[in-house]
Amino acid sequence: MPGGTITLSTNRQMELIDITMEINKALRASGVGEGFCLVYNPHTTAGLTINEGADPDVQRDLIAALREMVPLDYPYRHAEGNSPAHVMTTLTGSSVTVFVENGSLKLGTWQKVFFCEFDGPRARKVHWRVMAG
Amino acid sequence: MPGGTITLSTNRQMELIDITMEINKALRASGVGEGFCLVYNPHTTAGLTINEGADPDVQRDLIAALREMVPLDYPYRHAEGNSPAHVMTTLTGSSVTVFVENGSLKLGTWQKVFFCEFDGPRARKVHWRVMAG
Amino acid sequence: MPGGTITLSTNRQMELIDITMEINKALRASGVGEGFCLVYNPHTTAGLTINEGADPDVQRDLIAALREMVPLDYPYRHAEGNSPAHVMTTLTGSSVTVFVENGSLKLGTWQKVFFCEFDGPRARKVHWRVMAG
Repeated sequence: MPGGTITLSTNRQMELIDITMEINKALRASGVGEGFCLVYNPHTTAGLTINEGADPDVQRDLIAALREMVPLDYPYRHAEGNSPAHVMTTLTGSSVTVFVENGSLKLGTWQKVFFCEFDGPRARKVHWRVMAG
Repeated sequence: MPGGTITLSTNRQMELIDITMEINKALRASGVGEGFCLVYNPHTTAGLTINEGADPDVQRDLIAALREMVPLDYPYRHAEGNSPAHVMTTLTGSSVTVFVENGSLKLGTWQKVFFCEFDGPRARKVHWRVMAG
Repeated sequence: MPGGTITLSTNRQMELIDITMEINKALRASGVGEGFCLVYNPHTTAGLTINEGADPDVQRDLIAALREMVPLDYPYRHAEGNSPAHVMTTLTGSSVTVFVENGSLKLGTWQKVFFCEFDGPRARKVHWRVMAG
């Protein structure tokens, strides 16, 4: 099954990184024309989401809203101190699935695929596989 | 790959619309017996979710709870004023995947597939594709 | 398409149950080497998530955070009184998709697949199917 791994270096505790171009580049190199692309995040303090890529303020607002919604100062039991990042991981989810058409992700006009760092900065990986069909 | 697009006209700023029957009708017309159906929302201020369809109050309660959880009056930076809708999009997700069996979505007894409008009213689209297997 | 159903008995109103070993055991019995595994929850007051499995406190913190975020005492309209569970179902999602490699789920180092009970205790089911590729 065609696939690969993208490596990332995040720079902040929380940030969204647009990985659409890298996935599309890898997809084209794989030669798959049509299928389902599963983009998969193997980490438990980071997520993946599809949202607007045109205005970077949307990414900042997403982070701000998650920090408002998820209790940051709650008496969590997990000793590493990054429980809010684990919660955000469950809220955003570990993968996104997108159709491939003509060798590229078939996203909406304003959509981009974002890696969501919730406990950085760190070295991170994202895997992808395409089921041709 | 069998697939198509459903068009929707939403009527309120926020509402959930049951699209199960339309997808099942399109599935049957496509003649696919078994596979994975990816239902995909190409918008960034709308989502998709699977939840109870029997009591319409569940849909109203979901909207009420999202409006309680996501900050509505926060000093967001995105100038269009619809940042809460972008946040709700990330919380619900851009797609749902369901098995197809005997030509229909294999949902649980109470489950329906809902389009989630977070920034309407608008004209919207939902794409679907089936990977036969 | 190879697949099956896992049955669960939950013991509390809210709990996370690691189902990774059961799915991997069923996968190995099915003989599929490589593909996409869709793990699907047919219930509307329970979810599925992928998160850290090493420290059980992460599971407890996830439940605690959801109970902080989702309004529990809100004047919901759904008469069964379990609207918070329906909301949590939409937040976590009804399925997870994971690559299969060498006959097992290709999870990250710390990742496990969890069934999320939000309205227990109950008898529950989880379906899985693998699209070989």
